[in-house]
Amino acid sequence: MKRVLSGMRPTGRLHLGHLVGALENWLVLQEKYECFYMIADWHALMSEYQNSKGLSENTEEVLLDWLSCGISPDRSIIFCQSNVPEHAEIYLLFSIIMPLGWLKRNPTYKEQIRELSNVDLETHGFLGYPVLQAGDILLYNADIVPIGVDQLPHLELTRELVRRFNHLYGETFGLPEPLLTETPKLLGIDGRKMSKSYNNAIFLSEQSDIVEKKVKQMITDPERIHPNDLGHPDVCSIFYLWKAFEKEKNKVVEEECKTAKRGCVFCKEEIATVLNEKLSPIRKRRAELKKDKELLSRIIKEGNEKARELASKTMIEVRRKIGFYEKL
Amino acid sequence: MKRVLSGMRPTGRLHLGHLVGALENWLVLQEKYECFYMIADWHALMSEYQNSKGLSENTEEVLLDWLSCGISPDRSIIFCQSNVPEHAEIYLLFSIIMPLGWLKRNPTYKEQIRELSNVDLETHGFLGYPVLQAGDILLYNADIVPIGVDQLPHLELTRELVRRFNHLYGETFGLPEPLLTETPKLLGIDGRKMSKSYNNAIFLSEQSDIVEKKVKQMITDPERIHPNDLGHPDVCSIFYLWKAFEKEKNKVVEEECKTAKRGCVFCKEEIATVLNEKLSPIRKRRAELKKDKELLSRIIKEGNEKARELASKTMIEVRRKIGFYEKL
Repeated sequence: MKRVLSGMRPTGRLHLGHLVGALENWLVLQEKYECFYMIADWHALMSEYQNSKGLSENTEEVLLDWLSCGISPDRSIIFCQSNVPEHAEIYLLFSIIMPLGWLKRNPTYKEQIRELSNVDLETHGFLGYPVLQAGDILLYNADIVPIGVDQLPHLELTRELVRRFNHLYGETFGLPEPLLTETPKLLGIDGRKMSKSYNNAIFLSEQSDIVEKKVKQMITDPERIHPNDLGHPDVCSIFYLWKAFEKEKNKVVEEECKTAKRGCVFCKEEIATVLNEKLSPIRKRRAELKKDKELLSRIIKEGNEKARELASKTMIEVRRKIGFYEKL
Repeated sequence: MKRVLSGMRPTGRLHLGHLVGALENWLVLQEKYECFYMIADWHALMSEYQNSKGLSENTEEVLLDWLSCGISPDRSIIFCQSNVPEHAEIYLLFSIIMPLGWLKRNPTYKEQIRELSNVDLETHGFLGYPVLQAGDILLYNADIVPIGVDQLPHLELTRELVRRFNHLYGETFGLPEPLLTETPKLLGIDGRKMSKSYNNAIFLSEQSDIVEKKVKQMITDPERIHPNDLGHPDVCSIFYLWKAFEKEKNKVVEEECKTAKRGCVFCKEEIATVLNEKLSPIRKRRAELKKDKELLSRIIKEGNEKARELASKTMIEVRRKIGFYEKL
């Protein structure tokens, strides 16, 4: 069975964007593959090192959201990156063989530094972000890595590192393949991309009245002032929700909007209902899961152990190939 | 009792330069302090990653040389860096908080890249060399780090990192102090600085006839052609040996050379005898130690355990201060 690795940074509760962008895909993958789902807390620290207080709580929030959505520890290996020390070892190793030029050429590097201009990301670690990613993937010899098209250059760096390692120390790692996943565009309540850091998101654990309230605040077609004005769904935050969450009906909605047969107030009420129908079982499961105080730590602990089993095997082979002292 | 950390990269057998530059100092230190002596194999890999085959054998050679010179596992904690995984963890952590600018300003960085131009050192790891060093020192909360004056900027980087960490996450590490050690200049048989990589060294484990042969090859004062020519000891490779290994007699030797009372052939025979008297007990102990096949791995294993005990304590505190998930 082919192996998948994916992960999320624990930066807080997950929102609708995570559901349609990743988790729904993960649910499909865990039926077909051996999936390693990683709470990427080292990655979170890379961008949040100046404000790391919430790391532990956010780790639990992310896991709660995963489980509530149906990610299952019986099907998948769910673990916490920093609890598997082999991630740090392979980071150091790959850091040593990673040419600086490859990292500086990385197109997303400068872009991200610009985007997250409120944090000082000119650090040795952030430059080595793709080194850490490569380690995550190769520690488990993952065959498949689900990514968006914008992350292809990162995976290509991992593949180049595989070739370099195998060339230096002998055939060890296979080449991981990308599984391109389409992420439907979702806008937040302010019309920008839905994102926790913009403070504009609808969370998976949101109460139903808050969902309604947030949807009501969302920006529709700004040119549609009177109910009789024809709508332009392609610029409407609400219509992005329709496309992401109600695939069967969205053609009808589009038509009705364009021909002014549907008003924005009604449209918002309707999509809020769709969202709440979607989120209701997630909320219920979340409440159930929270009753068992030990559950989360038990799941992480078991996942960590399974992950370490494979990770330590990889590191034993890697250390032997490099020639470290092993007569212990 | 104050704690000392020092280490050597396992790149092969040690030579006279290591003895006068470091080991004789280590012998004094281990009487006064709690000393952690580290076989720095991750550091060796940083410069030797393209040729790592000898790492394991070199680790044993270095340890044999240490023990032969009197470094004692009963007094000091002797361990192998890569066997203590906490070194990699603290490297990743410090990599994350280390500003790139500090590393780029590091004066020895560009110098070393120039010096070791036969290896491709433009890597993420080599840029992070001071990050790894900082981790080595702080993992054991070392109070004292014996270094040469050229390494002061590296230790200053460690001290800056201490201030940064303590500022971000609360008072955790103390400021390590340098113990400036003077390293007598030693030239190899080709007149350049004695160094394994120049292939010009006299090794501690050298047989006595080879010591004599190598000393005979050494370059003396090039202007002294006839025995009656007055000598210039300040440019003579042999006189550097006198200064390093026979402190009481070197004033006499200097005077005799300058006044042509001493010829180079005799002078070489005499210093070869001095060296062999110095190396003879080291050679003997080396031969003894080699008889016990299990000895080296036993010493490393015990040292690793002692080192890990302290290193893991440090990492537990560090992880708690940062706020990683720990409910395991």
